[in-house]
Amino acid sequence: MNLLGRTGIVIEHVERSSKAAIEELVAYGVATVHEAQGRKGLLAPYMRPIQQDKTIAGSAVTVLVSPGDNWMFHVAVEQCQPGDILVVAPSSSCDDGYFGDLLATSLQACGVKGLIVEAGVRDTKTLREMGFPVWSKSVNAQGTIKETLGSVNIPVSCAGQLVNPGDIVLADDDGVVVVRREELETVLIASRQRAEIEEQKRQRLAAGELGLDIYNMRPRLLEKGLKYYKSADDVGA
Amino acid sequence: MNLLGRTGIVIEHVERSSKAAIEELVAYGVATVHEAQGRKGLLAPYMRPIQQDKTIAGSAVTVLVSPGDNWMFHVAVEQCQPGDILVVAPSSSCDDGYFGDLLATSLQACGVKGLIVEAGVRDTKTLREMGFPVWSKSVNAQGTIKETLGSVNIPVSCAGQLVNPGDIVLADDDGVVVVRREELETVLIASRQRAEIEEQKRQRLAAGELGLDIYNMRPRLLEKGLKYYKSADDVGA
Amino acid sequence: MNLLGRTGIVIEHVERSSKAAIEELVAYGVATVHEAQGRKGLLAPYMRPIQQDKTIAGSAVTVLVSPGDNWMFHVAVEQCQPGDILVVAPSSSCDDGYFGDLLATSLQACGVKGLIVEAGVRDTKTLREMGFPVWSKSVNAQGTIKETLGSVNIPVSCAGQLVNPGDIVLADDDGVVVVRREELETVLIASRQRAEIEEQKRQRLAAGELGLDIYNMRPRLLEKGLKYYKSADDVGA
Amino acid sequence: MNLLGRTGIVIEHVERSSKAAIEELVAYGVATVHEAQGRKGLLAPYMRPIQQDKTIAGSAVTVLVSPGDNWMFHVAVEQCQPGDILVVAPSSSCDDGYFGDLLATSLQACGVKGLIVEAGVRDTKTLREMGFPVWSKSVNAQGTIKETLGSVNIPVSCAGQLVNPGDIVLADDDGVVVVRREELETVLIASRQRAEIEEQKRQRLAAGELGLDIYNMRPRLLEKGLKYYKSADDVGA
Amino acid sequence: MNLLGRTGIVIEHVERSSKAAIEELVAYGVATVHEAQGRKGLLAPYMRPIQQDKTIAGSAVTVLVSPGDNWMFHVAVEQCQPGDILVVAPSSSCDDGYFGDLLATSLQACGVKGLIVEAGVRDTKTLREMGFPVWSKSVNAQGTIKETLGSVNIPVSCAGQLVNPGDIVLADDDGVVVVRREELETVLIASRQRAEIEEQKRQRLAAGELGLDIYNMRPRLLEKGLKYYKSADDVGA
Amino acid sequence: MNLLGRTGIVIEHVERSSKAAIEELVAYGVATVHEAQGRKGLLAPYMRPIQQDKTIAGSAVTVLVSPGDNWMFHVAVEQCQPGDILVVAPSSSCDDGYFGDLLATSLQACGVKGLIVEAGVRDTKTLREMGFPVWSKSVNAQGTIKETLGSVNIPVSCAGQLVNPGDIVLADDDGVVVVRREELETVLIASRQRAEIEEQKRQRLAAGELGLDIYNMRPRLLEKGLKYYKSADDVGA
Repeated sequence: MNLLGRTGIVIEHVERSSKAAIEELVAYGVATVHEAQGRKGLLAPYMRPIQQDKTIAGSAVTVLVSPGDNWMFHVAVEQCQPGDILVVAPSSSCDDGYFGDLLATSLQACGVKGLIVEAGVRDTKTLREMGFPVWSKSVNAQGTIKETLGSVNIPVSCAGQLVNPGDIVLADDDGVVVVRREELETVLIASRQRAEIEEQKRQRLAAGELGLDIYNMRPRLLEKGLKYYKSADDVGA
Repeated sequence: MNLLGRTGIVIEHVERSSKAAIEELVAYGVATVHEAQGRKGLLAPYMRPIQQDKTIAGSAVTVLVSPGDNWMFHVAVEQCQPGDILVVAPSSSCDDGYFGDLLATSLQACGVKGLIVEAGVRDTKTLREMGFPVWSKSVNAQGTIKETLGSVNIPVSCAGQLVNPGDIVLADDDGVVVVRREELETVLIASRQRAEIEEQKRQRLAAGELGLDIYNMRPRLLEKGLKYYKSADDVGA
Repeated sequence: MNLLGRTGIVIEHVERSSKAAIEELVAYGVATVHEAQGRKGLLAPYMRPIQQDKTIAGSAVTVLVSPGDNWMFHVAVEQCQPGDILVVAPSSSCDDGYFGDLLATSLQACGVKGLIVEAGVRDTKTLREMGFPVWSKSVNAQGTIKETLGSVNIPVSCAGQLVNPGDIVLADDDGVVVVRREELETVLIASRQRAEIEEQKRQRLAAGELGLDIYNMRPRLLEKGLKYYKSADDVGA
Repeated sequence: MNLLGRTGIVIEHVERSSKAAIEELVAYGVATVHEAQGRKGLLAPYMRPIQQDKTIAGSAVTVLVSPGDNWMFHVAVEQCQPGDILVVAPSSSCDDGYFGDLLATSLQACGVKGLIVEAGVRDTKTLREMGFPVWSKSVNAQGTIKETLGSVNIPVSCAGQLVNPGDIVLADDDGVVVVRREELETVLIASRQRAEIEEQKRQRLAAGELGLDIYNMRPRLLEKGLKYYKSADDVGA
Repeated sequence: MNLLGRTGIVIEHVERSSKAAIEELVAYGVATVHEAQGRKGLLAPYMRPIQQDKTIAGSAVTVLVSPGDNWMFHVAVEQCQPGDILVVAPSSSCDDGYFGDLLATSLQACGVKGLIVEAGVRDTKTLREMGFPVWSKSVNAQGTIKETLGSVNIPVSCAGQLVNPGDIVLADDDGVVVVRREELETVLIASRQRAEIEEQKRQRLAAGELGLDIYNMRPRLLEKGLKYYKSADDVGA
Repeated sequence: MNLLGRTGIVIEHVERSSKAAIEELVAYGVATVHEAQGRKGLLAPYMRPIQQDKTIAGSAVTVLVSPGDNWMFHVAVEQCQPGDILVVAPSSSCDDGYFGDLLATSLQACGVKGLIVEAGVRDTKTLREMGFPVWSKSVNAQGTIKETLGSVNIPVSCAGQLVNPGDIVLADDDGVVVVRREELETVLIASRQRAEIEEQKRQRLAAGELGLDIYNMRPRLLEKGLKYYKSADDVGA
C-alpha cells in the first residue's frame, strides 16, 4: 500500500529497533554513519540544530502536516514511546513556527528524545533550557492553526529523504541522517569498523605522519600528473 | 502627514509608554506576545540575534538610512532616551556592516537597550562582550560611508513591518515583534491571560495528559475523517 | 605566469611574513583591518565561523579543489608550516563536507592555525573540542571523493577575493579578510593608527559625548538640508 | 484607526484617482517614477513578472490573506472596479500557488488590470494566453485552502512596502512601485520633467556626447582624486 | 528490496502505462492534476523550465548520479523507450551543468520526451532550438566528469518527491508533478471531473458571476465573523 | 603593481585581441569554450541574461564601483572602443539598479557590445528593444548615486572570477566565461577541435548510436562494478 502523501491516516503499530543498537549510533555521529552506510540517507543541510554539541538517535515517529497547520503534532504525541524521535514534514514548503515549549513538554513527558522538522520552530530559548533538542529548517515566532488533517506514521519525504516510521534517525551538529530499520545491524558493523580505522589514523596523523603516506597517495597523484615546482616561475605555460 | 520614505527629517518628540508596562513584555517573549495581539507585527524571520538567550523590550526610535550609509545613526543617538531601542531600516536592501562597537558604546552611554537593523553589523564579538544585544539581517565587516541624509523618528518599514516611533519592540531568540503604542495595554492583558493558560497547560502536559484530551480534539478529528489503523496493510486504496 | 585555475600544480616555496607582524593583526580584528587597508580584501559574508569569539591570523597556503573532491587537502598538508592557514576554494560551487576531524588532526600536528574553505565542513562538534577554528560556507555531513587533481599554492579566487600563497588571512566572528603580503607593513601602520583613534573615541562616547560633536557633523548635516521638528504635524508636505 | 494586520474586515469604499492620471504613469515606467517620487515606494526585487514587456498601472484593491489560504481573493473580487489592480500580501511568508486561471477569469470580467501578490501563482501559461499580467514572488502549482479570514481594503505590507487601498500601483519588467494617492499629481509632474530631461540626454548620448561632459562631471572627479594613467605600470604603490 | 540510494544498479525492465492515458494528462496540466490526486506529488518549486509554454508527460526512467558526475546519463539512454522522460537526482546537492545538447540529441533519437533534473543544465539555447524540453534546478555551463557509478531505474528522491521508475511525470510552466503508475487511472478520472467543473465555473465567472455566489461562500464568511464597513473610520478598535 | 581593489585609478591603454579571433568564440558558445580552456574562467551561475538566445564576445573594459554608486560607469564609457564589453563589479555586494537605458544609449553609441555586471539593472524592457544585451545578478528599479570613486581598467573580481582589462569575455544563455588575452589563441585551437569532435558525435548520436559505444564506456563501467538486473526483485541485499 503506497501511503506517501495520503492524509487522514494514523498507523498505530510501528516496529522499533533495540534501544542499545540505536544508542550505539550516538557514539559514531552523523558523518561517520553516513559514510558507513554508503553515503545515503542524509537530510538536506538546511536542517540545523537550535542547540550546540548535542547528539541524539531514536526511532522515527513520522508526521505529515499541512502548511501552517500543526494539528497532527497532537495526534502524534499519543503514538510516541520513550526513545522515539518525531520526524515532521509539511506537505508543501512552510517556514511557520509549528512547534514550541508546550508541545515539547508533552513530548518530553512521553520520553521522546527530540524533534526533526522541515519547517520553523519557536520558544527556542525555553527549548534549550528544557534540554529538548530540535533540528529545524528555520526559527520563526509565527504560529500555526489546527484545521486540516495530515497523517501519522506513514512514509514521509523530509528535507529530501524518505523516512519510514521505525527508521532510525541520528542527528548532531553536522545534520541529520536516516538509517533504514532493516539495515541498522549492517550499518552498525560498518560504523564500528570505520570508527576503529579512523581512530588508528587519528593517532598516526596526530603524531605527524602525513595522509599522503598513510593512504599511499603519492604514486596515484604522480600517475594523474601532479607536478611539484619550487616556485611559480618554474611552471611552463 | 505621510512621512514614510521621506528623508532629511528628524522628529524630536516621541510618545513613549510606561517602562513598567514595556518591561512586562519581556516575561512573555515574542511568540506569546505575537499570538496575544492576533498574530501580527512579526518582523521577517531573517532578523537574527548575534547573541543567545537574551530578551529585550523598549520604545522604538526609528531610523531610515540610505544603502551603504550609516550617517543617520549618529543623528539618532541624540534622540534616544534610556530604555529605547533603535530600529533601523535601509531605503533599499543592503547587507553592509552599518554598526559596530563605537556606535554601541555611544548608545549604551545613553541607556539604549539594543538595536534592530535590517542590514549588517560588525564587531560582533565586542558587542557580545559589551552586553549590547543586536538583531540584524547579516554579519558583515564591510563598512559604510556618511554622505546621504535619511530620517529619524518617522514611520519605517523594517523587515516587512511598519514601525512607528514610540511603538514597542520586543526581541528574543525567536525574532522581533512590534506592538503599537496605543495597543500596549490590550496586548499586555491578552499576554497575561495567554501566559496563565499556557502555564496551566504546561503543568498538565508535563504530568502526561495529552493535548488531544486537554483541548478535546478527538471529536473534531473524527468528524474531519481521521482514521486509526493497526498497520499500513490495513489501509484501503 | 598566470596560474589561476590551473590544476596539477604544487608550488613548494612560499614567501611568508614575520610571525610577530601577522600576530599583531589579531588585536585589531577584521573590521578594523578591512577599513585600514582601504575597504578591500573582504571575503563574501557567507563565510561563517563554526565557533564563536575566536580570531586567527596566518600565512595562506592556498588550495584549489574539484567539486566534491578533497584529494588536494592531503597534498596541501605537506606544504604547511607552523602559523599557516589553509585557504581552500573549489573550482565550481560545492557545499559538500570536504573537511573533518582527521584532516584537522593532521593540520594541527603541523601547527596550522585554522581553515578557510568556500565549501562545507563536518565533524564540527569535534573541531570545536579540538580548538581547531574553521570558517566555511556551510556545514554538511556529505563527504567527498579523491579522484581529481587540483593545485596547491597557486592564486585562488575564494568567496569573491583573490588569495595568493603567502598573503595574510585574518578571520574572526565578523568574517575573513585577506591582506597582500607586500602590503602588510602599510596595513599594520594604518591599523595601529585607526585602533588608537577608535580607542580615544570609544572613551569619549562612553563618557556621553555625541558622535555629532566629536566628528563635527552638525554643519554638514545642516548644509545637506536636515531639518528638526518637534512633531510629525510640524512637517510640511 | 490602525487597521494594519487586522482580519475579518472589508472596507467597501475606496477613493480612486482619475484614470487618465493613472494611465499616464505607464508611459514613464517603474524606474522613472521611482526616481521622480524621491526613490521610495519600490517593492522588493523578488517580485517578478510571469510575462515579458508588459506595463500596467491602476488603483490598489488590497487583500490580506492567511498563509496557504486564498479565501479572501473571492471576497476581494466583489470590491473591484474596472481599472483596479489587486495587491495581495500574506500575513506570514508563503509561496503556495494562491492564484490561477479561474480567479483571473473572474477579475478580468470585472475589468481588473492585473495582480501583484507576495506569494505564488499557478496556471501561468494560461494567464499569459489570457493576457492577464501578474507579478508574484514565485510560481508554484501547490494550491491553497479556504478556511481563514483575512481582510480587504485595509493597509497591507507587501514585499516591504506599505500599500493603502486606492494607492496607485505601477508594474513593469523592472518591478513594482506604489505611488500614494495624495501624491499622484506631484509625482506625475516630476515624472514628466524627468522623462523630458532623459529624452534630451538620450539624444545627446546617442549622438556620441559623453555623460562626463553632459553632466559636467570632470571637475568633481578630479577634486575627489581620480587619476588617469597610460598603463598599470605608471601607477605608484 | 529497498534500493533507494544504492549505486551500481541498472534495472532493465520497467512497467509503463498506456501512452494514450499518459498523453491525456497533458490536457489538464500540473496544477489540475496535482489537485485531482489530493495535492501530492509536486516537486519543489525551484524546478524551473528552460523554455516557455510547453507541457509534457511520460513514463519516468530514473537516474541517480553522483555530485559533479554525469556518467549514468549514458547508461540511462540505453534503458529509454519512446515516450519516456528522464528523471535525474544527484545523491547530494549539486548545481553543475550535467546535461547539454549532445545528450539531448541522443535522448531525442530514442524518442525521449524531455528531462527533469535536480541540478544544472547547459547549451540551453540549442536545447530550445532542438525542441527538447528541460526542467532543472539551475542553468550552469560548468561541466561534469565520468568517474563514479550511480544507478538507473531505482526509486530516487528528486526535488523532495519519491519517483519510481515507471511513475508518470507531468511538467509544464507551473512545475513538475509525479503520478504513481498504479494510481494513473484514478487520477485521470478525478482530473477529467475537475477539468469539467473548472470549465463550467470559468464560463460563469467570465460572464460576471462572483465566486462568492457560485461557491455559496457568503454564509460561512458571515459565520466566521467577516464584517463589511463603508470606510475605515467605521471600524471599532 | 597590484591594483586589485584600488580606487581612484583609470588606466587608459588596454591591449585588445584581434576582432576576428574574438568573434570566432561566439560560434562555440560558453559551455564549449569553458571546456576547451580546461574548465576555468566561468562566472558564478547567478549571472543571468535579461534577454534570450543572444551570444556576445568582446574585450573587457573593467569597472570597480562602490555599493549603490554608478559614477564610474560614466568614466568608463570614455575608455571604450567598438567591440568592447563592460565588466562591472561592486566593491561589496549590492543589488541596486546601476544601469539603465541612458547609459546603454551612450555605450551603444561607442560600439560597445554589451554589459556584464555583478549587481542590478533596470529599464530591461527598453534594453531588449534597443538590442543591448546584459548579464546581471538582478533586476531592480532602485537607482544609485554618484558620490564615490571606483576605478576603470584595473583587474576586478567579478562573480567569483578575476577579470583583467583586455581579457576576452564570452556570454550566452548558459552564463559568462572569461578567456585570458594571452591564452586566446590556444583556447581557439582547443575550441575548434572540441567543436569538430562534438559535431561528429552529434551526428552519430542523432543516428541512434549510443554514447556507451561511441565512448567505449562498457568495459570501465563493468570494472567499476555496474550490474544489470531484469527487475528490482533480482537485486540482492
